[in-house]
Amino acid sequence: MSRQSAFWLNGTPTTALPLPSRAVEFGDGVFETLLLHRGEIQFLDLHLERLAQGLAVLALPDCLAAVRQHIDTVSGTITQRPPQWAALRLTVIRGAGERGYAPAANAEPDILITVTEIQRNCAALSSAATMGTADIRLARQPALARIKHLNRLEQVIAAAQAQSNHLDECLMLDQDGQVVSVIAGNVFLLSEGELLTPALVNCGVAGTRRRLVIEKWAPALGLGVREVQLSMSDLGAAAEVFYSNSLHGVRPVSRIGNHVWGDHTVCAALFQQYLEDIA
Amino acid sequence: MSRQSAFWLNGTPTTALPLPSRAVEFGDGVFETLLLHRGEIQFLDLHLERLAQGLAVLALPDCLAAVRQHIDTVSGTITQRPPQWAALRLTVIRGAGERGYAPAANAEPDILITVTEIQRNCAALSSAATMGTADIRLARQPALARIKHLNRLEQVIAAAQAQSNHLDECLMLDQDGQVVSVIAGNVFLLSEGELLTPALVNCGVAGTRRRLVIEKWAPALGLGVREVQLSMSDLGAAAEVFYSNSLHGVRPVSRIGNHVWGDHTVCAALFQQYLEDIA
Repeated sequence: MSRQSAFWLNGTPTTALPLPSRAVEFGDGVFETLLLHRGEIQFLDLHLERLAQGLAVLALPDCLAAVRQHIDTVSGTITQRPPQWAALRLTVIRGAGERGYAPAANAEPDILITVTEIQRNCAALSSAATMGTADIRLARQPALARIKHLNRLEQVIAAAQAQSNHLDECLMLDQDGQVVSVIAGNVFLLSEGELLTPALVNCGVAGTRRRLVIEKWAPALGLGVREVQLSMSDLGAAAEVFYSNSLHGVRPVSRIGNHVWGDHTVCAALFQQYLEDIA
Repeated sequence: MSRQSAFWLNGTPTTALPLPSRAVEFGDGVFETLLLHRGEIQFLDLHLERLAQGLAVLALPDCLAAVRQHIDTVSGTITQRPPQWAALRLTVIRGAGERGYAPAANAEPDILITVTEIQRNCAALSSAATMGTADIRLARQPALARIKHLNRLEQVIAAAQAQSNHLDECLMLDQDGQVVSVIAGNVFLLSEGELLTPALVNCGVAGTRRRLVIEKWAPALGLGVREVQLSMSDLGAAAEVFYSNSLHGVRPVSRIGNHVWGDHTVCAALFQQYLEDIA
């Protein structure tokens, strides 16, 4: 295991998760991936808003006060010798109870924090991504759409394909072939002077940076954004394609299969907006 | 945490799972729930066959030899003072690697075994189950159908509903309203002298006891079994309804919402077949 990560469980440094854990048994929980710049957490409130939605969907107890406290503890610890850039993964796991699927009535959730240094300079626009389309298609499950839960086998299978094909990312379609997202991020296309992004009614994660593009960064450039249904042919006809996620901000796409884009002007301008918001 | 369970990781007794773990991060693995009778594992080969299918679908390394060895170690340990009945949960987790979805190239899987005593007498036919229909519908994901992977939030949400409605189980439908299974088991109905069960093309787990009903116990009674598409009205018209799983064998159903069944003759006869196979 080559990764250098540090772990805190419920505010205390640890190297292991006590068993039983419903994360291990059923993927019963939600997570967030936050960017740390010199130990400072970026866009915390947006992450906590989505986390709260996930907790509500899964009927997990409202543990946001404890989450804030544990994040403070961890960032207080690492700011003594902070890496330039790091990823802080926050995982909230339903507390264990009796054997089987039924949730425990009053079990406190476990709050697991993982910090991993990022070697890349996150203040530089990433090189345009070379992508394919994932063979596995996302299942339509409106009850779990938009939240960032721990059931992520579809993404793991797609990431294995991207890795073996030496691709930076893959586009993910739903069972009907409509565009949903990339594996780890949301997709946008520029078409006739406006941005279009999938509406995420039946699947996909509603990213924090997706929200910032829609509500702040695109409006700052005078660009409208519409949440719509998008097909592969819409994508092929786009002037620009990019994706958003918490570690890249926004990242241009140079290729998806046979579709090629050379112009990344709007994505670069959005990245400048992003940089202004990084603390 | 009221549960009394014992844990072994890669053959060694433990109380915690070392981090990082891809089970915690993504639900990246598969599991089996095996019945132990006085420390003896029931139907091991059928469980290992399904496990092998799951490992292949997720492109996990073939670790069946290690799995057999660790199960031997555990059952050797507990046969010194075996409970009458216990559940042995076997979880195979993809080995950790770098941060993110992409699987590690050569990481050995972690093999986690959990043993939990069962208080019920598993050699007695369970009382007929009172059931409802789960509000959450199963997503159609043919790439993950039939295997027993760790992404089980749909079952958790349905089990919470069953629990709060004081039901023994819930029927689960797919997004089109077709019958798939119960939360923790496969469903059968008796119609015009034959058994019908959902074909599990797009979702659902292909249970070991489902396979035994189809291939052995029903044929022993001179009953045919067909894997078909089943609607709620097929179910309502059935003469008998029951479900199968590894801890109950087969269990009659007395009610699903407004549908009521009083005759459990075939289920009781199948249970006798089941008892003959219990070591």
